[in-house]
Amino acid sequence: MIPMPEIRKDPVVGRWVVFSPERLHRPTNYGFTRPAASDASADPFAEGNEAFTPPEVYAVREGGGAPDTPGWKVRVVPNRYPALRVEGTLNKEAVGFYDRMNGIGAHEVVVETPHADKELEELELADIIQVLKAWRARMLDLKKDGRFRYLMVFKNVGPIAGASLTHAHSQIIALPVTPIVVKEKLNAAREYFLHKDRNLFEDILRNELKSGERMVFENAGYGVFCPFASRCPFEVCIMPRQQQPDFPKSGDHDLVQLADVLKKVLTAYRTGLDRPNYNLVLHTAPMRWPRPGHWQTLDFDFRWHIEIIPRLTGVAGFELGTGFYINPVLPEAAASFLRGVPASP
Amino acid sequence: MIPMPEIRKDPVVGRWVVFSPERLHRPTNYGFTRPAASDASADPFAEGNEAFTPPEVYAVREGGGAPDTPGWKVRVVPNRYPALRVEGTLNKEAVGFYDRMNGIGAHEVVVETPHADKELEELELADIIQVLKAWRARMLDLKKDGRFRYLMVFKNVGPIAGASLTHAHSQIIALPVTPIVVKEKLNAAREYFLHKDRNLFEDILRNELKSGERMVFENAGYGVFCPFASRCPFEVCIMPRQQQPDFPKSGDHDLVQLADVLKKVLTAYRTGLDRPNYNLVLHTAPMRWPRPGHWQTLDFDFRWHIEIIPRLTGVAGFELGTGFYINPVLPEAAASFLRGVPASP
Repeated sequence: MIPMPEIRKDPVVGRWVVFSPERLHRPTNYGFTRPAASDASADPFAEGNEAFTPPEVYAVREGGGAPDTPGWKVRVVPNRYPALRVEGTLNKEAVGFYDRMNGIGAHEVVVETPHADKELEELELADIIQVLKAWRARMLDLKKDGRFRYLMVFKNVGPIAGASLTHAHSQIIALPVTPIVVKEKLNAAREYFLHKDRNLFEDILRNELKSGERMVFENAGYGVFCPFASRCPFEVCIMPRQQQPDFPKSGDHDLVQLADVLKKVLTAYRTGLDRPNYNLVLHTAPMRWPRPGHWQTLDFDFRWHIEIIPRLTGVAGFELGTGFYINPVLPEAAASFLRGVPASP
Repeated sequence: MIPMPEIRKDPVVGRWVVFSPERLHRPTNYGFTRPAASDASADPFAEGNEAFTPPEVYAVREGGGAPDTPGWKVRVVPNRYPALRVEGTLNKEAVGFYDRMNGIGAHEVVVETPHADKELEELELADIIQVLKAWRARMLDLKKDGRFRYLMVFKNVGPIAGASLTHAHSQIIALPVTPIVVKEKLNAAREYFLHKDRNLFEDILRNELKSGERMVFENAGYGVFCPFASRCPFEVCIMPRQQQPDFPKSGDHDLVQLADVLKKVLTAYRTGLDRPNYNLVLHTAPMRWPRPGHWQTLDFDFRWHIEIIPRLTGVAGFELGTGFYINPVLPEAAASFLRGVPASP
């Protein structure tokens, strides 16, 4: 008796996911271990190779030292291949029938360690905290630029996840518009709040903590769970326990707690899933300007959070054509597996 | 002087695409040739191996012959690893805080040729027409099942595009709900029609034919162009010249014309892009039931069309987190390139 596939709806963005365990048995299966780090001499992010990047905009240099020289723990530089450029003013225009704008924005790389062969989860907790502080510091700085509407931190690990370099790094992008994925979340959160006078993300986390079947880790500050409608096997969400729409407003104590769960979940991936390719996305509230009635409830209804997506399954015609995802592993099974991975290998 | 990236908006679904030619120069580039066909003995779709698939639901047997025996040109079978299952009745239910439904649907495979080593664009025009007739016939049959709301034809070619087998095939899926991607198109088309009293797809095609800079091929029945906000290099859209929301209502003469442009564009991919992995998706109108006011204008405002997406670039954290795409090649350049590929190698 083959079980009937189950289709689940994401409570925030309304996305449907087909859970189809049979498809695990297809002839070809994804599941790739990411390649090991490259050698340091050819690595533009390694200590000593500072000349290979644009000049740094931020660095942690506990022993002092000049910019763009060795002696740093975390270093932030503009992306040499930016998707968007900082120069100029924002122009939106019609091109006959169509609409376009110029690609104003910022695109920075957070080099998470001076070592070519260390990955984020291998760093000491204190060093991971420094990476999170670098995210916060750059976001607080970029927020001052009135042309930007949205800031996103993300991390591509492994070539299947879009990384072009193996050296541990994350990216920060500043956009002139709030992206559609974030708008959908903001709208859903506002609707929910107006309707129920409760915070949607609070309710999701409370529900997950209560049932426990999809919980992976928790500490005093954060809950980590596999979402009810996970798009892919072992997807996790990291959600703060306290209401806070803006990641950059996180305090030092928050970042200590966040580094703890982040190290735990990335270590569970590393050990349990054999170093998968993955993407991490941090969704925070957009920049708010005094516009009456616009996102006025945002401080109460939206909460920043992190999504981590191991790239074990691909997107094919079905997903492209429908917006649905097909996932062969139920999140209850994924969470149970991740909880069971030994903390140290 | 590095050009400013340009951000374009898709006129149907409102998706933004960042055109960033600089990113072509990143250290890692995608661009994979799909593997050649497997040997016929291990190929469940090859002629003579009919016993390896579930019993056929449709076949073209010009010389007659029993079902599930050799002697066919096109053969349609249920997918052995279905994302959705035909048995049962549709149940939608709440699971505490969340929503789910059971995975009612159909999932069929259209085997496009008996030969393990032939790809769709290599077939004779008459044989491609038989494939399109198979799509039409199966959709007309599946439309009779009142549990289904939407039918989608799609094609995954190459492992990067999600294909688990190399033998030329397409897939048809019947869904119990209209997928979000299609709803967005239907809503945009209706808004446009109510606002302007014109068909959005008609206006897009007219605009493309007039400017010509993104046109790839055209014949009496169809226009093929690279969309203004193409998600990835060399994306094309095949649009009928005549208003028709429902692909299954296409006449024999239409399918002859469609086979002609489909063969041309897939041959241009094969020769010009060195046999890329690609996905093809056919978007047609959902099943319509007599519900007053619901999609009432659909016959006038929506038009079926095909999207083809070569998988030359990947989706990373930026795309996952924003819903934007980054495309290093402008569609004007892509169309010019595809027009220039010799028709026979």
